[in-house]
Amino acid sequence: MKSIGYVRRASKEEDVKDRSLVSKIVIRRDLVQALDGIEDFSHLFVIFYMDKVKEKEKALKVHPRGRTDLPLVGVFATRTAFRPNPVGLTLVEFLERRDNVLFLKGLDAFDKTPVLDLKPADSWDIPKNVRIPGWLELLEKERHDEARKTD
Amino acid sequence: MKSIGYVRRASKEEDVKDRSLVSKIVIRRDLVQALDGIEDFSHLFVIFYMDKVKEKEKALKVHPRGRTDLPLVGVFATRTAFRPNPVGLTLVEFLERRDNVLFLKGLDAFDKTPVLDLKPADSWDIPKNVRIPGWLELLEKERHDEARKTD
Repeated sequence: MKSIGYVRRASKEEDVKDRSLVSKIVIRRDLVQALDGIEDFSHLFVIFYMDKVKEKEKALKVHPRGRTDLPLVGVFATRTAFRPNPVGLTLVEFLERRDNVLFLKGLDAFDKTPVLDLKPADSWDIPKNVRIPGWLELLEKERHDEARKTD
Repeated sequence: MKSIGYVRRASKEEDVKDRSLVSKIVIRRDLVQALDGIEDFSHLFVIFYMDKVKEKEKALKVHPRGRTDLPLVGVFATRTAFRPNPVGLTLVEFLERRDNVLFLKGLDAFDKTPVLDLKPADSWDIPKNVRIPGWLELLEKERHDEARKTD
């Protein structure tokens, strides 16, 4: 596999976990045509290669977000980067395309991260009656409370 | 990247596009622990390597589903397998885990397809106010009408 392009962020110091930020993906010149029609979608999945993960950091089990108050679970039950294949997957909002540059909201990838694929979100991708574990409900509640505080 | 396991289907003749079918993923023995806790999620994203795609089949633009009555669009605006990196992404329903074997509904991958990653679906993955192009609305309407006919 070869990267189809790279993530570009406004600065290397940005908090990549802040989903309100806008970042760019610069697509390889020879693939520009493959973007035609992407502007008709509101949401894209970005699949990227988390090249900053070191071999020794990879784990079979983790505490979600490194929090020891949450249960130790298998990495395939989390979105941790420390997984056998460091492939990232993020649903982003598509904002704008300028030639070979896409402007996206919500991409939690570092500056210069190699991108492997872009896929438009369609109705098959909308899960219905989603069930999640208690630890994730807690994390989502915390995030919600935090967002309300800063509103 | 190395596969974390393989897709197993009831038969090689199954219609992989039939999302009502149940298939299995057999995870590598050395990664069994990484599955712990996955049973608490209702939905998973499966990322797989579409190893049957030939180099010469890869395209920059395609007619969705090969239908020439639909516009020619860039492959990144479609879910075609004929893309620069033949990486598949499917949201599936998690049904059951038996040791290193997962039973899933809706996986549109062929028998023996190498699996690269499994990610649980959480609330970040639910797109809101999804906008899709007219050609995809048409395909979704056709599918809906077809489903009603066979009900």
